[in-house]
Amino acid sequence: MSDQEALRRIHALVASIIPPDAAAMDAARARQQTLTKPPGSLGRLEDLAAQIAGITRSGAPSVARKAVIVLAGDHGVTAEGVSAYPSEVTPQMALNFLQGGAAINALARAVGARVVVVDVGVAVALEHAGLVQKKVAPGTANMALGPAMTPAQTHAAIVAGAEVLDEQAAVGLDIVATGEMGIGNTTAASALTAVLTGQAVATVTGRGTGIDDTQLAHKVAVIERALHVNAPDPADPLDTLAKVGGLEIAGLVGVVLAAASRHIPIVIDGFIASAAAMVAVKLCPAMQGYLVAGHLSVERGHQVILQELRLTPLLDLGLRLGEGTGAALAMGVVDAAVRAHNEMATFADAHVSDRPRE
Amino acid sequence: MSDQEALRRIHALVASIIPPDAAAMDAARARQQTLTKPPGSLGRLEDLAAQIAGITRSGAPSVARKAVIVLAGDHGVTAEGVSAYPSEVTPQMALNFLQGGAAINALARAVGARVVVVDVGVAVALEHAGLVQKKVAPGTANMALGPAMTPAQTHAAIVAGAEVLDEQAAVGLDIVATGEMGIGNTTAASALTAVLTGQAVATVTGRGTGIDDTQLAHKVAVIERALHVNAPDPADPLDTLAKVGGLEIAGLVGVVLAAASRHIPIVIDGFIASAAAMVAVKLCPAMQGYLVAGHLSVERGHQVILQELRLTPLLDLGLRLGEGTGAALAMGVVDAAVRAHNEMATFADAHVSDRPRE
Repeated sequence: MSDQEALRRIHALVASIIPPDAAAMDAARARQQTLTKPPGSLGRLEDLAAQIAGITRSGAPSVARKAVIVLAGDHGVTAEGVSAYPSEVTPQMALNFLQGGAAINALARAVGARVVVVDVGVAVALEHAGLVQKKVAPGTANMALGPAMTPAQTHAAIVAGAEVLDEQAAVGLDIVATGEMGIGNTTAASALTAVLTGQAVATVTGRGTGIDDTQLAHKVAVIERALHVNAPDPADPLDTLAKVGGLEIAGLVGVVLAAASRHIPIVIDGFIASAAAMVAVKLCPAMQGYLVAGHLSVERGHQVILQELRLTPLLDLGLRLGEGTGAALAMGVVDAAVRAHNEMATFADAHVSDRPRE
Repeated sequence: MSDQEALRRIHALVASIIPPDAAAMDAARARQQTLTKPPGSLGRLEDLAAQIAGITRSGAPSVARKAVIVLAGDHGVTAEGVSAYPSEVTPQMALNFLQGGAAINALARAVGARVVVVDVGVAVALEHAGLVQKKVAPGTANMALGPAMTPAQTHAAIVAGAEVLDEQAAVGLDIVATGEMGIGNTTAASALTAVLTGQAVATVTGRGTGIDDTQLAHKVAVIERALHVNAPDPADPLDTLAKVGGLEIAGLVGVVLAAASRHIPIVIDGFIASAAAMVAVKLCPAMQGYLVAGHLSVERGHQVILQELRLTPLLDLGLRLGEGTGAALAMGVVDAAVRAHNEMATFADAHVSDRPRE
């Protein structure tokens, strides 16, 4: 595919997205008033059910068919020593996902979701029958020296992500959770967050998989250098994504845009997946209503992104693993919310008194 | 059963409880260090898995067989006009549970739990093939005029709850969630909380199913009157439970004591279920480690109880319904935590590099 064709596809995707349906949300709210519970007593579960009704345009939505889409990519900036683990862990963990041995596999099984593992930019060749092959490049360039990706790579990775979502929708997909694997990708996510929210690098940069104070100061300095070298345009999310993002992050932008276009609810995971969602919302504000924030990560920049996206996380369990783990757990809560909405009896059906006491 | 026999059983139950096993918890923590994730990156999920390992004395615990035990009872204090709904809603909702149409049914289905509905003190006769009949009395007396229960009723209700747990354990039970239904029972829970934590009644009294400011002030005044009339002894949890508690609350005390005695993890629900757990911990401090706080209720006294019990809620979703709804949702999180613990590959198994970068 030519770069021109890729860009045309991205623009068509963005143009196809309209917000969740307000009438469907209102109808869901009205149904909730008739269910056998005090009004509002299911709290966030009622909000979630209304949101899913609005996204799916259904009075009785289903989120039965669940997938966690995990995109893997490597980061040239690891040459600067920003991560606690070496880059070889990216393909090792991708294979672990494919063999079912990672945290995301266990949590996805717990909520009845399938795990889809995609190589959009792992540095080494990866082979596995279950792997979705969408490699755009063998890792990004080192953002501390120049742009992480070319514009063409960025566009191709977005299109690759959208294709993955389309392929999963063809198999059957009611709700998607976003996940990622990429040693060094908290560095990219922090850089994106600093540029797109205007916050200081130190405010949005955390310890990733576990670096100490000295390494954290070094990571902040590396990101500041990358911003200085590349001068990404905060008003241009694609330019910012190319210069200081990553292949798996660009892929996730495509995943969430395609999901919103298809009226499929999206549960975003932690810092990196949320950075991708932020890029997507900057490209296409109409997609904000398709997002459910699965959890609040320990990684400090995550809160900044959620505030920027005006999203309140469902869970706060001290996770900082990525992979889609927090989003997978949260899909279980969304499933429960939708079940309560669909399956509960009304006051009339159950012959329960619905009048306030005199 | 004589009251003497009931009291003997309660004392035997309390004496049988020893804290979760520290060695099993340590072994679980050690295993977690070998799993394919950065140390500690699963946050609360790691704490939960270690706790469940300690409770069950197992290195690979299962929480597959789940039950929500919902105890129903009526409250004489509703004669004072403390609730937004009339007492007839208690049996109506109990039947709704038995027909599968309530929020707890949908949420229990979502997490693969059975719902066990027990009549320990509903004011009217309840008939349903699925109902567990343990009625001790047709509702409590009005605590604003005198003791809600006699000591003998209180002991009988505790024993009834323990019997329900034993019966469920005989069927197969790996984890239990506590739930309740009883119009007026936030009034009883507030009274218990005020006495057993020493907080002011106004601090621990909320809107229950939805009363306005005037009704709330009246509810506070009724509880203050009940405390004045009954003068419960804060150092005597059974005396306090009898005078200002309720039959379903006493039943839940029995459920949690019996679960702890059998090394079965307990996920407590909101304000009322937590008040029962607090009474149990005051009777038997060794059982504290068997409790998982499922969620934080909107009902203001709940936070006070959780602080008293030194428990941090897993979820905070704005629920205020009771029935066991928050506990059922949280059982899904516990299940996921245990699965991650049991099912994840180790660094060695998965050939993933576990060394920090030089």
